Parts: sequence; structure tokens; C-alpha cells
Amino acid sequence: MTSDLIAQSAARSAAVHRKIAQAIHRTPVIPSRQELPDHTRLFYKAENFQHTGSFKLRGASAKLTTEPLDRPVITASSGNHGIACSLAAQTTGHELIVVLPETVVPMKRQRIEAFGTRVVIHGADAALAELHAQHLAETEGYSYISPYNDAEVIAGQGTAALELLDQLAGVDNVFISMGGGGLISGMGAVLKEFAPRTRVIGVSATNSCALAASMKAGRIVETEHLETLADGVAGGVDADSVTLPMACEVVDDVIHCDEDQIAAALRILAAEEGMLVEGAAALALAGYLAKPEAVAGQTSAVLLCGGNYQWDQLRGLL
Amino acid sequence: MTSDLIAQSAARSAAVHRKIAQAIHRTPVIPSRQELPDHTRLFYKAENFQHTGSFKLRGASAKLTTEPLDRPVITASSGNHGIACSLAAQTTGHELIVVLPETVVPMKRQRIEAFGTRVVIHGADAALAELHAQHLAETEGYSYISPYNDAEVIAGQGTAALELLDQLAGVDNVFISMGGGGLISGMGAVLKEFAPRTRVIGVSATNSCALAASMKAGRIVETEHLETLADGVAGGVDADSVTLPMACEVVDDVIHCDEDQIAAALRILAAEEGMLVEGAAALALAGYLAKPEAVAGQTSAVLLCGGNYQWDQLRGLL
Repeated sequence: MTSDLIAQSAARSAAVHRKIAQAIHRTPVIPSRQELPDHTRLFYKAENFQHTGSFKLRGASAKLTTEPLDRPVITASSGNHGIACSLAAQTTGHELIVVLPETVVPMKRQRIEAFGTRVVIHGADAALAELHAQHLAETEGYSYISPYNDAEVIAGQGTAALELLDQLAGVDNVFISMGGGGLISGMGAVLKEFAPRTRVIGVSATNSCALAASMKAGRIVETEHLETLADGVAGGVDADSVTLPMACEVVDDVIHCDEDQIAAALRILAAEEGMLVEGAAALALAGYLAKPEAVAGQTSAVLLCGGNYQWDQLRGLL
Repeated sequence: MTSDLIAQSAARSAAVHRKIAQAIHRTPVIPSRQELPDHTRLFYKAENFQHTGSFKLRGASAKLTTEPLDRPVITASSGNHGIACSLAAQTTGHELIVVLPETVVPMKRQRIEAFGTRVVIHGADAALAELHAQHLAETEGYSYISPYNDAEVIAGQGTAALELLDQLAGVDNVFISMGGGGLISGMGAVLKEFAPRTRVIGVSATNSCALAASMKAGRIVETEHLETLADGVAGGVDADSVTLPMACEVVDDVIHCDEDQIAAALRILAAEEGMLVEGAAALALAGYLAKPEAVAGQTSAVLLCGGNYQWDQLRGLL
């Protein structure tokens, strides 16, 4: 029996899925080509083929459907969230402002501006840009969009699990990378509410494991953030984040993977599955590969959260 | 208005699609991430994610549904067709024999035998192995399965176009690689019958262009076969092949691409689309890229026919 928090998030996902169906791509579920033991099945839910190359479009689209059109919305991210908000705002017609740090790569700035997004450059790093975005939201009356700490955003990410349940019958395990926790909270709520037998397994990068450490402590804790191939899930968790209680309830198990495991998963996806993805997506496969005995004879799904790699960097790894 | 030959093939595709639906994977249609001019849209029909890694499973499954179970079936191919027949026969319960040349790579032989397929080693090359398979079919009373010159096989390949029409509304152009012609004949028949406004564009590798040359001559002609990255579509066309009159009717335009163009398309798929495919699949994208002005403002689909690359070889190209 799920808590109200989880049941409400799942219901919100079901409702919002109808609203954003035209804005998002119903991403495919792709069977693995790896040789697996008898009766062991592996599938990928391929958000790497989502518009803008990541699941973040789901949450951004969901959030914007609840925001009035006469008030600008603001966020701070030069990564998948910023690009997703830019496409979502182009679709809904919202005025969008994205705050970027002074260090932003020109190509990323151009990509965001190409959607018609207004860019504000502020601060020496991403954290300072985010603080400035929150400050502008308060002083100027803009709506601030958190990449993960927002019930609508979380419900939007949960729509990936609704599709998965339609696309793949009898899934035993779902492996999901953990960053701020929006994806695993939203998907986990849907899975626990509508397929309670399905296990939700969070995969955490050893080099940036704030959510996993917070879940273990039962409160938000700060951890050291080292460089990681899974940079899409790197960083801390908001002090008041709703994702912590949600993740504590819906996640059945957490698997920790180091950089070698992530790199190995990236190579397997390239050599055997014909897919190139970003490190944060390979992280979820690394979790699947870490305990083969735990998935033997079962049907598992690995959520590939994004495909926005830097080609020169990825090519070097392969 | 289509000829009886085309109308019948399309009808056969529609019928067989219901029979093989459980055996094949409904492959995704994936939107391109490339930056395209306004109103220009590009999608991939991703048979690279088909079971066994190629569209050949469609034709093999279609053919076996019409063959009696009490008579063994035989074919000759260490490539996509042989692997596809092996999985199809495992599903239907047919006894399958595959003739392989003495030069076959051990890994390919193992992959075929792993399905429970009986392997006969005969002849110094693929053409001699094929002759021996036809000889055994006649003398032993086996059913012979041609990779492309067979109405059921062609109808099976055509099911990829039925799915595409369901998945993508208003497609203006479909780019399809040409080998023996089974794929383009089967898909082309479906497209001409059910979406006559859609243009069917055949893409031919300059280094192995037997079907394109035969279409131009109006009869089967032999051409020189040089090595090509698109080895999945290399080789001649049977003297009596039904694919020649079919292709002549359904193909609106033929585009010729050389090895540099195929290599460039392979790199674009890796760098921009996050997909690794075999050369024969990249060939279709090379055709799309060859005439940007012809597809501007239109919706196009590129059929990615297979994903069975040799990783070490592909890695070198990238």
C-alpha cells in the first residue's frame, strides 16, 4: 500500500501524460542483443531517443502546462534540463529565461537560444547561476522551474514508467540512475502504484552520490562530488527536496557503480547494442550488470535517461 | 494504379503481418536529432533494433508460416538471412539446415548453431554454398528459402512499411537500400498500394549495383562487385528474380552512393544520432544526404536495415 505522497504523484503522472502526449516522443522499448542466460530478458526504455535527447522534456512539459502563460518562467541549466525547458516553452508559448554561468560553452548557449529562449549570463559556476535564477524569480515575479524538486516535474518524469508498463508486460526490475531524484521518484511512484510487484533499483555513481547517502542517513547530507562520466546526474540535492522521502519509499535497492563500471557499460552499449548514450544513461546499465545473479531468470528494464554525449570525449572512451 | 503483382504483394504483406506479429519486434520510428531546415523532418525506421539485428527476420518468419512443418527447410547464408531463418525456425519449430562455405568465420557458425540449426559445410565460397543448398533441396525434398527472390519473403519485408505508415503520418519520401531487392520490392509495394503519394527512393552502393544496373537495362545484368562497407547488400541478382519487375514499378528514383558517402553517413549516425549500424543501413542515409534540396520542407523516412556491424571494423572508421 503506497503513501498519499506516492499515490498522488502516480495519479498526477497519469493525468499529465494525456496533456503532454503531443509534446513528447513515446520512446521505444528496445530488446537487448546481449547473450543472456535462459529466461533472462533485458530491455531498454530509450529516453536517449526522446526529443532534446533526454527524459527531462517530460518534466519540463508537465510543469509548463500548469504555469500561466502571462508570466515568464525561469530556470538555470546549460544541460538537458535547460534544453528541455527551451523546447517545452517553444511548444506551449511561454516566455522562458535561462540563466547560464559565465563559463558556459558557446555551443550550448547557441542551442538554447535557437529555441527562442532568453539567456541571462550570471555567476562563475552553475550553482551561482541557479541562485540568481531563484533571485530573479522572487524579485521579478517569474515562475522558477527546479530540475527535480517539483511535484509537477516529478509527475512528468513518471510518464516514462506509464509507457514502460504499457510496452513491456511483467517487468520484474527497473534500473534507474539517481541524480537529484526527480526521475526515480516519479517513475518509482508510478511503478509502486500500478505495478507493486516490480522492483525499483536505483543506481548511484560512486563519485557523486548525494541522494544515495541522504537516503541512507534519512536526511539530506552533503557529499563530495568528484568528476564522473555520469555528469548528467552529478551534484547535490536541495535541502528541502521532496525527492528524498519519495525515493526512500519507492526504491527497493541501491547499487553503487564506479567510473570503470560506467565506462564498461558505455562500451557494451556501443559494441553490442548499437547505441551511444551519455554516461548517466550507461550508469543504469552498469547497475544491471553489477549483480547478474539478482536478475537471472527475470525480465528487467534499464532506463537510458539521455543521449547527449560529447562525441569527441565518447569516441576516446571507445 | 498499381499492377496485380504489386497489389497482391501488398495484400500479402497485410495478411502475413498478422501471422508474424508475435515473432517480430515492431521496430521504433526514431526522430532525427540533426539540425534540419524549417519544416524538413527526418525519421528512422529502425530495423537495426529488430530481433537478430536486421529486417530479414520479417521475410524469414513470413516464409516459414507457409511451409509445412514435416519437411526440413534449407538456405545458405552466414549473414543476416541465415541468422534470421535460424530464429524464425526456432519459433515455428521447423527443422532448418543452413549451408555455409568452408571459409565461414567460426563465430558466425556458432551463432547459427546456437539456435539449434543444423549446419552443413560445403564449397569454397558463398555462391557455391548456395548452389549446394539448392541441390540438396531438390534431391532431398527440402524447401529452399531464397533471401529475396520469393513472394512470401518479399511480402514479409513489406511489413516494415505497414508499420511505418501506422507510425508516421504524411511521409513524403522513404529511402531504402537496394541489395537483391527483396526489401525495396516488399516495402515499395505496400507504399504504392496504401500511400501512393509517398515516393520510394532506392539507394545503391556504387561498388555493388547489380539491381540498379538491371533496372536501368530492363533485364538482369551482371556487374562487377567491389568491396563495400554496405556488404549486407552486396552481390548479384537471380536470373529470374521477381524483384526486378517489382522494383521497376515501385521505385521512383535511384541514388548512387560511393564508399566515402557511406562512411560519412555511418559517422553522422554515430556522432549525431547515437546509433551504430551496419554499412548497408548507413547507405540509405547516404542517399538522403545526397540531395538535400530534394527533401527540403518534406517528411522523409530512412530505413535502417540492420545493425550487425563488426565492432572492431566500425570503431576504426569512427
